[in-house]
Amino acid sequence: MQSAQQATNVTFEEINLGDTASYSRLVTEREVELFAAVSGDHNPVHLDPEYAATTQFGECIAHGMLTGAFISAAIAMELPGPGTIYLGQNIQFRAPVMLGDTLTVNLEVTAKHDKKPWVTIATVVSNQDGKVVAKGEANVAAPTVKETVTLIPPPDVKLVEAGE
Amino acid sequence: MQSAQQATNVTFEEINLGDTASYSRLVTEREVELFAAVSGDHNPVHLDPEYAATTQFGECIAHGMLTGAFISAAIAMELPGPGTIYLGQNIQFRAPVMLGDTLTVNLEVTAKHDKKPWVTIATVVSNQDGKVVAKGEANVAAPTVKETVTLIPPPDVKLVEAGE
Repeated sequence: MQSAQQATNVTFEEINLGDTASYSRLVTEREVELFAAVSGDHNPVHLDPEYAATTQFGECIAHGMLTGAFISAAIAMELPGPGTIYLGQNIQFRAPVMLGDTLTVNLEVTAKHDKKPWVTIATVVSNQDGKVVAKGEANVAAPTVKETVTLIPPPDVKLVEAGE
Repeated sequence: MQSAQQATNVTFEEINLGDTASYSRLVTEREVELFAAVSGDHNPVHLDPEYAATTQFGECIAHGMLTGAFISAAIAMELPGPGTIYLGQNIQFRAPVMLGDTLTVNLEVTAKHDKKPWVTIATVVSNQDGKVVAKGEANVAAPTVKETVTLIPPPDVKLVEAGE
């Protein structure tokens, strides 16, 4: 069992324009199958290599919104972190994500509201070659109370082929 | 084993302004644990009932971007369906999603580009009480070729508690 990990937030007061953070995830067949399971999008372009070979992509691609899941995790885990309330996100999907890609979400604070604890964060997702696969902007209510939380690893997830 | 299911797309030519589709999903602990596993967001507000009881929500809430995953599946499975290229999405998160909520994504075509096969779709996600939990707009390249695909159910996902 993994030992408990902790995460500490960055409060609205502590946040400065230009603050940055990054968050990386490897995309494998596991991530694509989990995203299919949680979303219900079982299109063969994501899950069937033979079908995917007949498309413009030539191989299976990840669901575009997987980049949105990674952006949301970057905000919730890194900047501002625990206690953040997600108000909105826009995303432009720029390039396909392939299995084996390592995606990095780069966050940069671009605006702070003058009355409410609201922060605007530029969100750019690039692959291991530096190619931007998705970009956009998040609006969040940053936490106003400093906090360190204990992260709860979810149960192990096992993918079991039909018939096993 | 589930028998193979199929999905047929709606081509750009077939799409009319005002066309609608809907897509519903039940949110349980399973969806929240899967979203934590795929995104890497292990915040206790989603996964630890004792911690969540101390927050403004009083109980565990789903990750906001789970609504984005459902919107993307609605587009990929229903309207326009297979062959759609997701260009962009904006989402405003309006209200928390609780475990046990049944979310319905309602799609409505609001614009068609006059030269390219691009379509704008209003995306509204409501819970079982009719409360809007997320809303926004998708931009997609609709398929230009009519197609029926065989959906590939992903492997069964089993959540295994630590120690089992």
